[in-house]
Amino acid sequence: MKIIEGGITTAKSFKASALNSGVKKSGSDLALIYSEVPAIACGMFTQNRVQAAPVKVSRLHLKKITSQAIIVNSGNANCCTGKHGEDAALAMTEIAANKLGLEKEDILVASTGIIGIPLPIEKIKKSIPALVKNLSKAGGHSVAKAIMTTDKTVKELSCEIKIGKQSIRLGGIAKGAGMICPNMATMLCFITTDVHITRRALKLALKRAVGKSFNSISIDGETSTNDMVLVMANSAAGGDLIDRHKEDFEKFCHALEYLTSELAKKIVKDGEGATKFVEIMIKNAASNSGARRIAKKLANSILLKTALFGEDPNWGRIASAAGASGVKFNPHKLDIYIDQKRVLKDGTAVKVDKKELIDHFKKKNINITIDLKRGNRVYKVWTTDLSLDYIKLNAHYTT
Amino acid sequence: MKIIEGGITTAKSFKASALNSGVKKSGSDLALIYSEVPAIACGMFTQNRVQAAPVKVSRLHLKKITSQAIIVNSGNANCCTGKHGEDAALAMTEIAANKLGLEKEDILVASTGIIGIPLPIEKIKKSIPALVKNLSKAGGHSVAKAIMTTDKTVKELSCEIKIGKQSIRLGGIAKGAGMICPNMATMLCFITTDVHITRRALKLALKRAVGKSFNSISIDGETSTNDMVLVMANSAAGGDLIDRHKEDFEKFCHALEYLTSELAKKIVKDGEGATKFVEIMIKNAASNSGARRIAKKLANSILLKTALFGEDPNWGRIASAAGASGVKFNPHKLDIYIDQKRVLKDGTAVKVDKKELIDHFKKKNINITIDLKRGNRVYKVWTTDLSLDYIKLNAHYTT
Repeated sequence: MKIIEGGITTAKSFKASALNSGVKKSGSDLALIYSEVPAIACGMFTQNRVQAAPVKVSRLHLKKITSQAIIVNSGNANCCTGKHGEDAALAMTEIAANKLGLEKEDILVASTGIIGIPLPIEKIKKSIPALVKNLSKAGGHSVAKAIMTTDKTVKELSCEIKIGKQSIRLGGIAKGAGMICPNMATMLCFITTDVHITRRALKLALKRAVGKSFNSISIDGETSTNDMVLVMANSAAGGDLIDRHKEDFEKFCHALEYLTSELAKKIVKDGEGATKFVEIMIKNAASNSGARRIAKKLANSILLKTALFGEDPNWGRIASAAGASGVKFNPHKLDIYIDQKRVLKDGTAVKVDKKELIDHFKKKNINITIDLKRGNRVYKVWTTDLSLDYIKLNAHYTT
Repeated sequence: MKIIEGGITTAKSFKASALNSGVKKSGSDLALIYSEVPAIACGMFTQNRVQAAPVKVSRLHLKKITSQAIIVNSGNANCCTGKHGEDAALAMTEIAANKLGLEKEDILVASTGIIGIPLPIEKIKKSIPALVKNLSKAGGHSVAKAIMTTDKTVKELSCEIKIGKQSIRLGGIAKGAGMICPNMATMLCFITTDVHITRRALKLALKRAVGKSFNSISIDGETSTNDMVLVMANSAAGGDLIDRHKEDFEKFCHALEYLTSELAKKIVKDGEGATKFVEIMIKNAASNSGARRIAKKLANSILLKTALFGEDPNWGRIASAAGASGVKFNPHKLDIYIDQKRVLKDGTAVKVDKKELIDHFKKKNINITIDLKRGNRVYKVWTTDLSLDYIKLNAHYTT
């Protein structure tokens, strides 16, 4: 696998464009990703029971196996907006389809921003012709920027693999910096690839990749109403059709997992106000679900996250959060490590040099490991600290 | 019911004292509550799987139906301290018993403070004789102060009821300001009463009262390793024995619930860095457990709590947190109210004057109501906002 420059338009026959439609006061807020040929498409969506209108429309349009474009706006989530919101999301696909000479079912739609404000659909409608007209290979980067809300960094990535004689490219962009929690991190992610693959295989590859990446991160325990990951595979690179049982499939999966993992890490590192990148590993658990619940409880513990921000080696909060997860384990067997340093052994504090411990907490990247000594299941989650800047950023989001 | 001045020593035949033993650098950190006669006792303890040594010892000593004293230290949780910790907690009861002319099983023990640091038991041992010597009626207030950690306000309360010809008194003290979440808010609470009651009845009354008070508050979603509520009823007021089926029992329950609710509210109002008192009510839920899960998800939502701090009327975060609770409901029937103002009706935003909405968020006390329109279950939780001061307070707790 080779990392290459670029993002959403590095794969063959993909173009993109972005502009300011007026949803946001300034900066681009409307974007289009387009495949010149029909692409096998699939998606994964938020688990939130309250789902935004674009989530509903994209789910519906994915009933058609191929898609050819994704239209996305930032600055407004188009959620809790009732019938008007659903009409608006549909209108976005209809007008884009009309301008591209396609059916509305060929277009997927996404939104991100504030909940409960009617989407200014007229502004968007007026901008779609220019959006279509400006489609280009060079437009990929501008789309990565247009989907940002509180993000501070552009998140895009691209890679190339060899399958048979063909060079296959995958590119991805993502947005997300807050409202991030396992079960689909709160975020948008779009992936394009020119691989020739069946839909079954693409679905499986996406499910695996998301499980190990976006579903294993948490910034604040929140799951948004608008999360989605969409992938379009347009087979423009040619070559044999890849199905689930072929060796080439594993190669493709590996590349897709690399892409989603790196984008997920970029989201965590860009976490609102984040000053730390924290890997939490639960080892030797009796079950995957138990390991996951403990990992999530730790990743979302306000007290632990503030201690991490303060570089305060108060690891008692790790033990307390694990115990409060509701998962059964023997507290007299519990071990806790900060990086490689064991601080708790069989439920009892280990005498540790405090200065040395503080040095671990002063690092940018911190590893917390819990060993339950009950089974052999492992679960890992990436998270951040909770800083003064997170509060400042989120205390005044709409005002 | 009459509110009277005082706290833990207003009921007949209770005395108390407190002093600085050196566990904390300054301020009192060791306290004793004593009944001159054996008292029916019972307790409720943390649900955390990691439990501090004093929790284990008090549970054990409650196997004896009567108790006569509670010894408690602040500044050190005596948790994750292994065999040494359990020996230390036992030693506290042994030495107090010895000085009071009692058995160690007559003494309950509690601790609050940092986890994972050996309890300096020698300092405590040396201080117990003075603690016993200083016992007095006037000592009640000093005990309420001695159990404080990050608390800014002393939490004590007392009331009187008439049962038959007897005047019955109940008094209580509590500590807690962070690590507060349903399932026994992270806190200590001690209640004394001179009522004449069976243990069965006392247990039931306590369970009811805690369910409606301490288990219905959340500051930060954390459940500590040291939580406990202990009650001693020494029958010094005389009168007929109260059992579960007597009318007088309901009278007593009502007074106890009043006491625990008021103490619980004091804890929330003293929440670390709290600037708001927020009541979250889930109405017309299909089940109690579902209502509770949604209430808890909202009370612990970092995004909602920061919006409350920022007085930002971003109620979309309420809808999003409810949807992410994992509880089934129909999002197209969801109503949300801020105080009496409906902002979401049947899943769709209601046009509201933004200035008026901001005025609601500027109030000290805010009521959030979610109407699920599915059944008739109701659950209420009291919580706070998440402020810059919370982070400042908790980022450097041990350092």
